[in-house]
Formats: sequence, structure tokens, C-alpha cells
Amino acid sequence: MTKPLFITFEGPEGAGKTSVLNQLVAEFQQTLGDDLISTREPGGNPISEAIRAILQPEEDNGMDDRTEALLYTAARRQHLVETVLPALKAGKVVISDRYVDSSLAYQGGGRGLGVDHIWQINQFAIDGLLPDLTIYFDLPSELGLARVKANRQGKIDRLDKESLAFHQKVRETYLELQVKFSDRIKIVDATQSLDNVVDATRQLILERMKYREV
Amino acid sequence: MTKPLFITFEGPEGAGKTSVLNQLVAEFQQTLGDDLISTREPGGNPISEAIRAILQPEEDNGMDDRTEALLYTAARRQHLVETVLPALKAGKVVISDRYVDSSLAYQGGGRGLGVDHIWQINQFAIDGLLPDLTIYFDLPSELGLARVKANRQGKIDRLDKESLAFHQKVRETYLELQVKFSDRIKIVDATQSLDNVVDATRQLILERMKYREV
Repeated sequence: MTKPLFITFEGPEGAGKTSVLNQLVAEFQQTLGDDLISTREPGGNPISEAIRAILQPEEDNGMDDRTEALLYTAARRQHLVETVLPALKAGKVVISDRYVDSSLAYQGGGRGLGVDHIWQINQFAIDGLLPDLTIYFDLPSELGLARVKANRQGKIDRLDKESLAFHQKVRETYLELQVKFSDRIKIVDATQSLDNVVDATRQLILERMKYREV
Repeated sequence: MTKPLFITFEGPEGAGKTSVLNQLVAEFQQTLGDDLISTREPGGNPISEAIRAILQPEEDNGMDDRTEALLYTAARRQHLVETVLPALKAGKVVISDRYVDSSLAYQGGGRGLGVDHIWQINQFAIDGLLPDLTIYFDLPSELGLARVKANRQGKIDRLDKESLAFHQKVRETYLELQVKFSDRIKIVDATQSLDNVVDATRQLILERMKYREV
């Protein structure tokens, strides 16, 4: 008999978090099988995907920052209800690429809407469900942006286009959140080689899984 | 020199509020011209219309109630920023068919999410901008539903389909809001003939316009 476990990955684009997630999920599934699912916001359900289409238009559509924050929060809610909660109720391990801390860092910090305001609307969406463990992949903003530019020529989205100052503010907010919620949020130095980042992340997850047996 | 004035119309479908609005706007525009605009949520901007398309799908898409509430709130924000605020900044009279009280009544009351929770996420969206005057068209729920059925065969949306108990809870919440914000929200008995409803509404608006001269 095992308890459900909810793990989220956070950090800027270019930190390698999706590569790490894919590698570790493949590895853990060898022992856990269907007992582990990986997902990412907005999560592939039709409602959240339709919301994402509004959030990432071909051309600037004049979206207000608060509208953007509310739309991300709505997509999160639907993903939580359709994907995350059913898996947790079935006692599974759920690893999600991004969750509530992304909104706190990007909209609260980066957009300057205030972490407290973004926290309030997200509380409505997540109804108290915080992850058991959040891994924050930390990287200087210059390096993250350089990696994004190198990796995906021509496929740059709204948030990628933001200025260096925006991304620095996002990082600063993630670091503040890590201090504030140090029991939940663990930091991984994403300037290391991918292998080392994977090792550090595996260690944090295994450590947390110890407490899963009941 | 005149001050801006923000008026909202609220109430159930079937209360005749849109007919009253159209008639009075035509009438007031004879003297005010471009100094008065009428609008309705979600307001015709591309972002809010795209949100509305998600909210009113052809078939049930399994939308969670909190997702719904966040989407209505996002559409409200964009409508406010694109349509309402520019007109108020230009010193105009703005009459909007529905605004924040609709969310409080339908999602807070009808869906049972709680008026306080819906108030919080809407505070984020409206950032303190409440109407100067809200006219609530009151009608027993049975009568409203019967009128809706008679008026639009085949074109029934998600909220129309809700049970009588849902619509009664919406009405109850509107009535509670009217008591709580009695300075702002004025009630009009919508069981009267359309002419009488128009007369009562005109009276309330003219009364409020007196204070518009500065």
C-alpha cells in the first residue's frame, strides 16, 4: 500500500527541466509502471488546450496582464481536476511540468502583479492542493535565454520574447519562494551538466519516496 | 463638463433587461449621442469572444465549476480594459449588460462556490471598479424560465439548462446582494409590462444622471 505523491518541476525555459523529467520518468516507470504518471500544464484536455491557444496567439492580441493570469489559473484548475486529482486519488505518483509556482513567478513577479494577488486567485483554483515536493531548476537568466535561442529557432512564444529584466524578476521570485517554502521547494543547480542535474533530481525524488510507504 | 458614469444591468434571462437596455439607450442617445455607449459582456473583443466559445460549447465538455468562474472573470477583465475603461476615461456614460454581480449570483450562488470566493477573484479582475449604479431586474425563477423557453426554441445555452433550484439560488443571491449594496443596486420589478419596466428603469437612470454635472 502506497500513498499518493505529487511532485512538480519548476524553472525557466532553458533549464533542461523537461529533459530531466522525461529521463527520470522513463527510469522510475521501470519499477513503478502505471503507478507513476507524468503530465505538464496545461495538460492536453480540450478546455485547457483551448485556453492555451488564446494565451499563445500568432500575433499580439492586446491581452491584459490580469486576463493572462486568470487564464493560466483557469487552465490549471481544469488540468488539476481532469488529470492530477484522479491520479492522486488512485494513490499514484504524479510528476507535473509546471504548476502554481509558475504563475507566482511569471505573473506575480515577472509581470509585477504581485505574488500575493496571484496566490489568492490560485488558491481558488487549487483549493489547498500544494505539491509534496517541488524541484526548482535554477539558472542565471542570461544563460537560460541563450539556451532557448539556440534550441528553438523560429519557435519563440510570448513569454520567451520578454526582456532580460522580466526573466531576472521571474528568477528572483522563484528564489524568494524557495526560501519561503523551503520544506516543499528544493533547488537544483541547472548550470551543471545534464547528467549531474538528473542525478541531483533523482536523489531528491528518492529521498521523498522513502516516506511513501505506509 | 460631465463626469463618467458606469451603469450595469443585472438579472436572469427572461427578465427583459436587454430589451429595456436597447430601448433606453436609443432614447438617451438622442440627447447624449456618442457620449453614451452600451456594451455587454463578454463585449465583442477577440479574446473575450474566444473565452465565450469555450464557455458555451456545443456539447458538454466536462468543465469544472471553478474553471468556469475563472474564465468568466478573465473575459470580464479583458472587456473592462478594452471597452469600459477607455469610455469612462473619456468621460462617457457606459451601460453594460451584466458585470461582476452576474458572477457573484451565478457562480457564487447558483453553483455554490460562495459569494466571498467569487468576490475575491473578481476583485483581482476589476481592481476596485464597481458600477455607480446597478439595476437588478427581479423576476420569480419559474416565470423567467418560462419566458426563456417561449422566446428561443432550440437556442438554449449551458446556464439556461440548469435546474429551477439553480435559478432560484441565483435570484436569492441577487436579492442578498441588493440588500448588502443597497446604495449601488436598485431593484426593478420585472413582472410588470415592458413599458412599465422601461419607465422604472429610466427614472432610476435620470435620477443618477442629475449628479453627473460637475
